[in-house]
Amino acid sequence: MAAKPATRTQAISPFYVMDVLHRAKQLEALGRDIIHMEIGEPDFPTPKPIIDAGIRLLQTGEVKYTPAAGLPELRAKIAAFYRQRYGVSVAKERIFITPGASGAFLLALGASLNAGETLLMADPCYPCNSNFVSLFDGKTDTVTVDASTHYQLTAPLIRQHWTPSTKGVLIASPSNPTGTLIAPDDLKQAIQTVNALGGCFYSDEIYHGLVYDQDAVTALAFSNDVFVINSFSKYFGMTGWRIGWLVVPDGFVEATEKLTQNIFIATSTHSQHAALAAFDDETLKELERRCAEFAARRDFLYKHLLRLGFEIPIKPEGAFYIYANCARFTEDSFKFALEFLEAEGVAITPGKDFGSHEAHHTLRFAYTTSIDKMTQAMQRLERFINKG
Amino acid sequence: MAAKPATRTQAISPFYVMDVLHRAKQLEALGRDIIHMEIGEPDFPTPKPIIDAGIRLLQTGEVKYTPAAGLPELRAKIAAFYRQRYGVSVAKERIFITPGASGAFLLALGASLNAGETLLMADPCYPCNSNFVSLFDGKTDTVTVDASTHYQLTAPLIRQHWTPSTKGVLIASPSNPTGTLIAPDDLKQAIQTVNALGGCFYSDEIYHGLVYDQDAVTALAFSNDVFVINSFSKYFGMTGWRIGWLVVPDGFVEATEKLTQNIFIATSTHSQHAALAAFDDETLKELERRCAEFAARRDFLYKHLLRLGFEIPIKPEGAFYIYANCARFTEDSFKFALEFLEAEGVAITPGKDFGSHEAHHTLRFAYTTSIDKMTQAMQRLERFINKG
Repeated sequence: MAAKPATRTQAISPFYVMDVLHRAKQLEALGRDIIHMEIGEPDFPTPKPIIDAGIRLLQTGEVKYTPAAGLPELRAKIAAFYRQRYGVSVAKERIFITPGASGAFLLALGASLNAGETLLMADPCYPCNSNFVSLFDGKTDTVTVDASTHYQLTAPLIRQHWTPSTKGVLIASPSNPTGTLIAPDDLKQAIQTVNALGGCFYSDEIYHGLVYDQDAVTALAFSNDVFVINSFSKYFGMTGWRIGWLVVPDGFVEATEKLTQNIFIATSTHSQHAALAAFDDETLKELERRCAEFAARRDFLYKHLLRLGFEIPIKPEGAFYIYANCARFTEDSFKFALEFLEAEGVAITPGKDFGSHEAHHTLRFAYTTSIDKMTQAMQRLERFINKG
Repeated sequence: MAAKPATRTQAISPFYVMDVLHRAKQLEALGRDIIHMEIGEPDFPTPKPIIDAGIRLLQTGEVKYTPAAGLPELRAKIAAFYRQRYGVSVAKERIFITPGASGAFLLALGASLNAGETLLMADPCYPCNSNFVSLFDGKTDTVTVDASTHYQLTAPLIRQHWTPSTKGVLIASPSNPTGTLIAPDDLKQAIQTVNALGGCFYSDEIYHGLVYDQDAVTALAFSNDVFVINSFSKYFGMTGWRIGWLVVPDGFVEATEKLTQNIFIATSTHSQHAALAAFDDETLKELERRCAEFAARRDFLYKHLLRLGFEIPIKPEGAFYIYANCARFTEDSFKFALEFLEAEGVAITPGKDFGSHEAHHTLRFAYTTSIDKMTQAMQRLERFINKG
């Protein structure tokens, strides 16, 4: 076959962390003890009530297709969750159950973005997000952000970078990799600005729930004309179940319904039945306990990275990442990550997976492992730096 | 928000059968007894060894991400299945585990089809397939096929309809809706023709295993330069689990790997672990028993539809559908389907969900229900026709 991969695949960059992960697995296979701080996956198991609900469905043997948009009772529970947790009313018809946040992005952009149109995103941001744009032959304009806006896009930045080809704006709060939040008033103004420009606003809220010392605000508190991407993966501890959700504006319900019928048929049935238990009191209590544990881990890691000489201009407020400046130690954070892994057996993610601005001076540490493990990791890091 | 749904969503047609299904559910809610022959989902539960494997994984609580391309042991089992069942050797690196055949189509077309390029497909064919093409802003050229080629595209038809914008050809065997197979030699020639033209060949093999009186041949028997879409849904009885697989040519492995990392992260972990039991002897024995039951249902339905005056030029050889010509009874098969449902409580799918050629004269009957139920359905159909 002379046929070549589609052009869009050239625009999709691989994850550099895969090189780190690949080498980490090789070292593990050789018997080395590796501490994983590169992975965006909580180390906790899925909460028991969710597991039990999944098992109950499997025991029936009847794992059949659900309606394309998801189980009506799950959509209703998510709507109720918006009322209880955020005091926001969302019609359940606007809520689509998806195969993870990935599926939600796929639907949101498939339903709204035309080939050649552009989305504005922050640099740094999560790399998959712009790859979904490439999938639909759109383009991403990244806007360099810094600590002065908590690494978030703001209304003035949006206005400054808006062009005739701009379709909309994606904001992720808490941000991956920085863990920082957009202030409620900044979020409101950003949405109003995008709506006034006739664009689409996409709010990535997949780390909601994992927010410390304050509450996260949903974009739905300020407008119904927003796309909200969320997930059961992170806060609810359901990564491998591949289930999330998407809220769309009224004008996109029909197009989203058609797309989801066609590109997914539906989300995994057992995952949906399991997720029905995600909002149980028992589950939520366990999740809050875990949230407190993550906050303690953040405090621990933040303190030690600062002590070792990393710069962290803003203390992260959510998610489970610290994005640390390592300019004092290296001009090439990717090389640093690979050498640190080789020498000390700790895996971390290089900045260039998240953008280009100052990427060579930054590293992402995920606190998805215990304080015990991180204590060892910090000892190893200290030794590595002092040798270097 | 002034923003409108993306242009591509206009090219994606809704399923007309949804109107049938919607009305069927209304009637059921009113207490009517409805026989479902519209649904492409086997009525059997998932085989017990698969269920048990899924439960065992859930009981560990560790439902974490797998590698993007899938569990290595599952990819190896699929490769072994190709050796055992088809006598074909496929490198496991070319096999990607996907969220159903839907995910496989998404990956295959995302990795290969550029915006503006065209795929050739038969009319009639399964409507989602061309909607995946629309998703990537491609176009579908449908080619009218008839009983003379078992409703399949052939090398002469491909050469005749090939244009400079043609990227490739999709063949589904067994076909949905006709249940007919492409002859092995025709498949070989079709693949050779497409390869010689420098195009991509996509083989939809999701109904393999549900083939009666003969064996289906995989496109991989004739070339490594093919995309093969398959699924655990139909033969393996795992519809709601949302798991399938895609085999790609060597030259597309890297692009497919990047895409799958980005658009899925991975397929549901519990579904993958459950599917490890799909190739167990105990499972395969149960599946062959079900296959024999489907063959008996086909014989029953075929005999009765002919008796009632429907035309079926070729006895279907696989899948669980009969695509019957109803020209003797109506000039509008969609109206016929809706009126038959209203009068007699039997749901079937109108031809226009599968194309335009003679669609108004055709109906698809799914034998995804028992012979007992179909006996009632045929009595009701006879009464309806005689009244009409």
